[in-house]
Amino acid sequence: MTYSAHGGWIDAANASWPEFAEALRAGAIPLLPFGAHEQHGPHLPLQTDSIMAEALARRVAIEVGGALLPVVAYGETSNNAGFPGTLSLSFETVRAIATDIGSALAAQGARGFVIVNGDFGNQAPLKAAARALTSGHVPGVPPLPTLVVDYPGFEEAAARFATTLPAGPGFYHADEVETSIVLAVRPEAVHMDKAEASYPDFPDTYPSLFTQLQEISPSGVFGDPRPATPETGEAILAALTLRAVDLVQSFLRRL
Amino acid sequence: MTYSAHGGWIDAANASWPEFAEALRAGAIPLLPFGAHEQHGPHLPLQTDSIMAEALARRVAIEVGGALLPVVAYGETSNNAGFPGTLSLSFETVRAIATDIGSALAAQGARGFVIVNGDFGNQAPLKAAARALTSGHVPGVPPLPTLVVDYPGFEEAAARFATTLPAGPGFYHADEVETSIVLAVRPEAVHMDKAEASYPDFPDTYPSLFTQLQEISPSGVFGDPRPATPETGEAILAALTLRAVDLVQSFLRRL
Amino acid sequence: MTYSAHGGWIDAANASWPEFAEALRAGAIPLLPFGAHEQHGPHLPLQTDSIMAEALARRVAIEVGGALLPVVAYGETSNNAGFPGTLSLSFETVRAIATDIGSALAAQGARGFVIVNGDFGNQAPLKAAARALTSGHVPGVPPLPTLVVDYPGFEEAAARFATTLPAGPGFYHADEVETSIVLAVRPEAVHMDKAEASYPDFPDTYPSLFTQLQEISPSGVFGDPRPATPETGEAILAALTLRAVDLVQSFLRRL
Amino acid sequence: MTYSAHGGWIDAANASWPEFAEALRAGAIPLLPFGAHEQHGPHLPLQTDSIMAEALARRVAIEVGGALLPVVAYGETSNNAGFPGTLSLSFETVRAIATDIGSALAAQGARGFVIVNGDFGNQAPLKAAARALTSGHVPGVPPLPTLVVDYPGFEEAAARFATTLPAGPGFYHADEVETSIVLAVRPEAVHMDKAEASYPDFPDTYPSLFTQLQEISPSGVFGDPRPATPETGEAILAALTLRAVDLVQSFLRRL
Amino acid sequence: MTYSAHGGWIDAANASWPEFAEALRAGAIPLLPFGAHEQHGPHLPLQTDSIMAEALARRVAIEVGGALLPVVAYGETSNNAGFPGTLSLSFETVRAIATDIGSALAAQGARGFVIVNGDFGNQAPLKAAARALTSGHVPGVPPLPTLVVDYPGFEEAAARFATTLPAGPGFYHADEVETSIVLAVRPEAVHMDKAEASYPDFPDTYPSLFTQLQEISPSGVFGDPRPATPETGEAILAALTLRAVDLVQSFLRRL
Amino acid sequence: MTYSAHGGWIDAANASWPEFAEALRAGAIPLLPFGAHEQHGPHLPLQTDSIMAEALARRVAIEVGGALLPVVAYGETSNNAGFPGTLSLSFETVRAIATDIGSALAAQGARGFVIVNGDFGNQAPLKAAARALTSGHVPGVPPLPTLVVDYPGFEEAAARFATTLPAGPGFYHADEVETSIVLAVRPEAVHMDKAEASYPDFPDTYPSLFTQLQEISPSGVFGDPRPATPETGEAILAALTLRAVDLVQSFLRRL
Repeated sequence: MTYSAHGGWIDAANASWPEFAEALRAGAIPLLPFGAHEQHGPHLPLQTDSIMAEALARRVAIEVGGALLPVVAYGETSNNAGFPGTLSLSFETVRAIATDIGSALAAQGARGFVIVNGDFGNQAPLKAAARALTSGHVPGVPPLPTLVVDYPGFEEAAARFATTLPAGPGFYHADEVETSIVLAVRPEAVHMDKAEASYPDFPDTYPSLFTQLQEISPSGVFGDPRPATPETGEAILAALTLRAVDLVQSFLRRL
Repeated sequence: MTYSAHGGWIDAANASWPEFAEALRAGAIPLLPFGAHEQHGPHLPLQTDSIMAEALARRVAIEVGGALLPVVAYGETSNNAGFPGTLSLSFETVRAIATDIGSALAAQGARGFVIVNGDFGNQAPLKAAARALTSGHVPGVPPLPTLVVDYPGFEEAAARFATTLPAGPGFYHADEVETSIVLAVRPEAVHMDKAEASYPDFPDTYPSLFTQLQEISPSGVFGDPRPATPETGEAILAALTLRAVDLVQSFLRRL
Repeated sequence: MTYSAHGGWIDAANASWPEFAEALRAGAIPLLPFGAHEQHGPHLPLQTDSIMAEALARRVAIEVGGALLPVVAYGETSNNAGFPGTLSLSFETVRAIATDIGSALAAQGARGFVIVNGDFGNQAPLKAAARALTSGHVPGVPPLPTLVVDYPGFEEAAARFATTLPAGPGFYHADEVETSIVLAVRPEAVHMDKAEASYPDFPDTYPSLFTQLQEISPSGVFGDPRPATPETGEAILAALTLRAVDLVQSFLRRL
Repeated sequence: MTYSAHGGWIDAANASWPEFAEALRAGAIPLLPFGAHEQHGPHLPLQTDSIMAEALARRVAIEVGGALLPVVAYGETSNNAGFPGTLSLSFETVRAIATDIGSALAAQGARGFVIVNGDFGNQAPLKAAARALTSGHVPGVPPLPTLVVDYPGFEEAAARFATTLPAGPGFYHADEVETSIVLAVRPEAVHMDKAEASYPDFPDTYPSLFTQLQEISPSGVFGDPRPATPETGEAILAALTLRAVDLVQSFLRRL
Repeated sequence: MTYSAHGGWIDAANASWPEFAEALRAGAIPLLPFGAHEQHGPHLPLQTDSIMAEALARRVAIEVGGALLPVVAYGETSNNAGFPGTLSLSFETVRAIATDIGSALAAQGARGFVIVNGDFGNQAPLKAAARALTSGHVPGVPPLPTLVVDYPGFEEAAARFATTLPAGPGFYHADEVETSIVLAVRPEAVHMDKAEASYPDFPDTYPSLFTQLQEISPSGVFGDPRPATPETGEAILAALTLRAVDLVQSFLRRL
Repeated sequence: MTYSAHGGWIDAANASWPEFAEALRAGAIPLLPFGAHEQHGPHLPLQTDSIMAEALARRVAIEVGGALLPVVAYGETSNNAGFPGTLSLSFETVRAIATDIGSALAAQGARGFVIVNGDFGNQAPLKAAARALTSGHVPGVPPLPTLVVDYPGFEEAAARFATTLPAGPGFYHADEVETSIVLAVRPEAVHMDKAEASYPDFPDTYPSLFTQLQEISPSGVFGDPRPATPETGEAILAALTLRAVDLVQSFLRRL
């Protein structure tokens, strides 16, 4: 099922530069997981979004024969800034990181660039970076088609495999879904004994008025993480991978 | 030997937000390893600087009872931009990442902030960020004393434990020293069979004229990595840790 | 039904400064329609988004006793930049306009600020501006709760009153819905004789890969504008107004 | 007297994109009126500068067969920021709006660009934008000759047609001249019953020291608006149009 | 005639920090001459504007008992950029220099700040800097009343003492007036044998369309420098000083 | 010993534009001394760094047949900001000045650019500017090889000619070395009667933690200026010149 001509994927963190050069030359697509350092309730680690994005990017890289880049461990998480431990980058900083990395790849002859995003707040700045890279609007940098993969099929997979409802439409944060995925990928960082359910009321003005999530859920939990299992996490991750691989392969066909 | 009142260190990547909040409250100092994704010859991984900074920061965190933050895996490496695989951030981006993370910590009541730097190009932007944070010049952010730890005692430790000379005064890149440290910390990413020595001539204008290192050493190696051993790496790392712990404790006494 | 204490709305374009001062003092909420100058097919005017946003903002202002500000006639429309006549502002420029206007209102003692958005590309920069204003992150400016109204209930209203389907889920551009609204508000700018239907295929990578809409629909039409009528437009506009008034009143209750 | 080859002017607000494309192709010059939302005493509307700039731009567009763009309703008015209702953009924002719009026009093949300015504070940022556009200093944008029309012949026309003196040399604000022009163009927004004269003393340091005009004239009036008539306004506007058309035609001959 | 309480002026370039501190404490006003490095024909030096601004600032400092700061030798001169030797700063850079220096003075307790400008292109950025400093809009910096002195009474003095006409209204560049002043202040840098007259035609679009002055006058001379004498220069400089001292003393009375 | 083909050096401050044009054409390298306005104890002038950089640049220009540009009299001196009279520019401002001047030179066909730096705080921003200019990363500007000369051989020369030790390794500020050089170049600005020695204790965290030097040495002196003589200054300056000329000639050979 490997799409890339070079016959294999590489983990760029552990690769040397000649290995990376060879992979680029063979057409391997670079994949950058972009995470966040953000509160996820009392039972999940602050790196939850990074863990999830890295897991998905790794699986996609394996399937499409890509070059997996090291995860960016911080992201835009200003709506959780009220919780100690949330370390938010600004919009500009997230955009700059993605633009700089994409610019380097473009100069080295990459034919495309895939960003696998794991955090809601990163969506707007990553789209802005991808638009500039794709359109050739970064001064001195050749155009680089840049795809932003934002958990395609998340709602469907959650509805299919989770046993509890989300706290709001399309709102998954420290709930059964996220907890299951982290249980599947990094179980030692999950404290199920601290898992508690929380279905808070959202104000009528949400999300039209910027609101600190701390005001809505003091624990930081939205939903019910208690039924989470690694099996559920694995099933959801597999579904997400399938959809993301399809998307990346559509992208590769356009290059 | 633990300085912090709270009696232990935490690995913030795996911590939940209440655990992080408790550590901050108890006075734990946050430590941010700042690495790079940069060529290190044919035998070392692109993440070498991140691996080294993370290893040092982890050891210091353990000694001083600090809160180890996830490594920033990318840095300013423009002088290696000619090598495929080097993915350099700009000066501004490195400064912004450190400023944003420090600003969040300041708002959450951290009493200080330690950045453990692993990359030459990060020095200037991290100093600029630390100066602004320390001086209270970030708009809307309370002053946060910020220490930049830049491998204190590196030259002495290298001279004492390594068997070969550096390629230039204070210039250590993909040589016996760096190779030994990665062998000690992440041996599976080192390919000693590809290790080769290179003592290139530096132009007379170096470093007064900005020069791509690729023009000086096509392999990206500066020095002789071949005698590297994990034992040498461990010895150097221990020496660096000792000096860095001293520095951080001096810092903590001033807070 | 007027919520504001001062008993009436004002059209700030035609008001003098003492009239505006009096309205602010009486608690009138300022409403800023934010439009765009963007292609809308061969039958709709380039100001379509501005016309729609202004019409909605005016109705909401009347209902809530607000202060209607002059429309911003340009917005972020980079995905239509391939069509002559589309004059796109950058992300930064849209954010700066909203931030500057909000900052002036905050300094003058406004208790809140409502932005009525009429353009997809404006969403991210207006949210960024509103977040900074609401959180008090604009240097030297007191916090100003800022609500972004983004056509609440659009899909429901479209489904209820339009006779044709949109070209894609949530995608309304130069179709029956938009054409009907402009017919209701500024009929002289609509050329129904030039209205043509277009249900183009979206590439699989849409919208994960930034794509010029010109490549998808050369005419700039998405959907079927031909059955559009002013009555349909009036019905949709009334439904949008109802939902927007509810939202603004929820917002006013929180101030 | 129409200079443009295409034989007519267009009002781009109401035009469709194919109509705008055709006008550009035929050589129509785009004209952007740039106004402000600024106090103009108790008898004139906050949009006075926009109304005046739009009226002049429209007349020039008709004479030269140009493409009239929608007015920018906000401008740099920081010296009136002390009055409620003045909503000032920053220098950067005004420059960015003009630069973005000019950049879009340049990409679409416009042969030149005319900005018709109606506000004193806009002069410096619009000149800066025009300089960059004309010189080809906007990255990625082809050079676009850009003319800034700043009420040429204003003092002469005022001296010839107004019956009262300005409050200071070259200083016209909410006086007979401006009031007459608004009476000619949008009479329903003028409240002559509230018109009052004010000939305040200017401090010796004016304008070398930045001064809020509120400190000089608490009413915001400078001069005597009471003798204003629509006839005077029409005469002045005709004189301004004549001079502006001459200027634009000189500009067109250079392209 | 000395206004300052401390009884004397100081030349800050040669002063030590305790001397400067004492002068500030005694109320001495800091004066910053802001020049440019710009072509002034074949007979005048590139530093002409700096020489003139420094000479005027020095005389004013002596009269008002001020603290003369070292001249800024570069300025915004983009309209002369076509001539080799013109080294123009951008608008932003000029503004930043003035803002940084004013910010430092404000932090050190200066009661005001005077900028003596010698270059046309500096006017807009210096006004922008002065506006921000005066209004307290520089983040973290207390308000600092800042006066920009722009050769008050230049036209009158030129008309009174020079024997030739300027090349255009208010346009003095490398002509009798400027040449006379440099002859009075730094005669060794003037080559009267190379002085030649030039009364070029200005295009009708000047200055509404940004134009390189090289296109108008290939020699860079505007007017007739040949009758210049040091006596004329001295007379003009004395007249300018008188007016500038009046302005600064009005400013000091307002502090 | 003159390297340049044109047979002589020029002082660009006093040169006319045709003279500068001729020098550039003949291959003269432009040299920009970059100083600072910074406290140097009670016996040295605030312009000490500018005086020293200008003196060195002048001597190098004479030796290599270069074009000496006027000194930039202000620099980044934030670590001395606690002393009245220190007027620090920001990192960005220093970088922008160097970038703007280099950009103008590049556009005029200079084959290279030399910056002679006299201030510690300027090092990072000047390196950043030089890197961008050399690499061709300034939008719209052709690449310009740019050398930053930072007192090569300073420590050796100080050790050889001075009779006292520095206050810290590589730390020379208001001591015998700097005092001697200013005595050699501008003796009238030195007050030896106020010279006092100061060998303060540096905190253990210096320089890893940003520290105001005022906290370390209240007088601003670091070392013992009392034995300073013009002869020592002349000897050190001669040694610095020799090294700097070598460096510049190596640079010229690479162009």
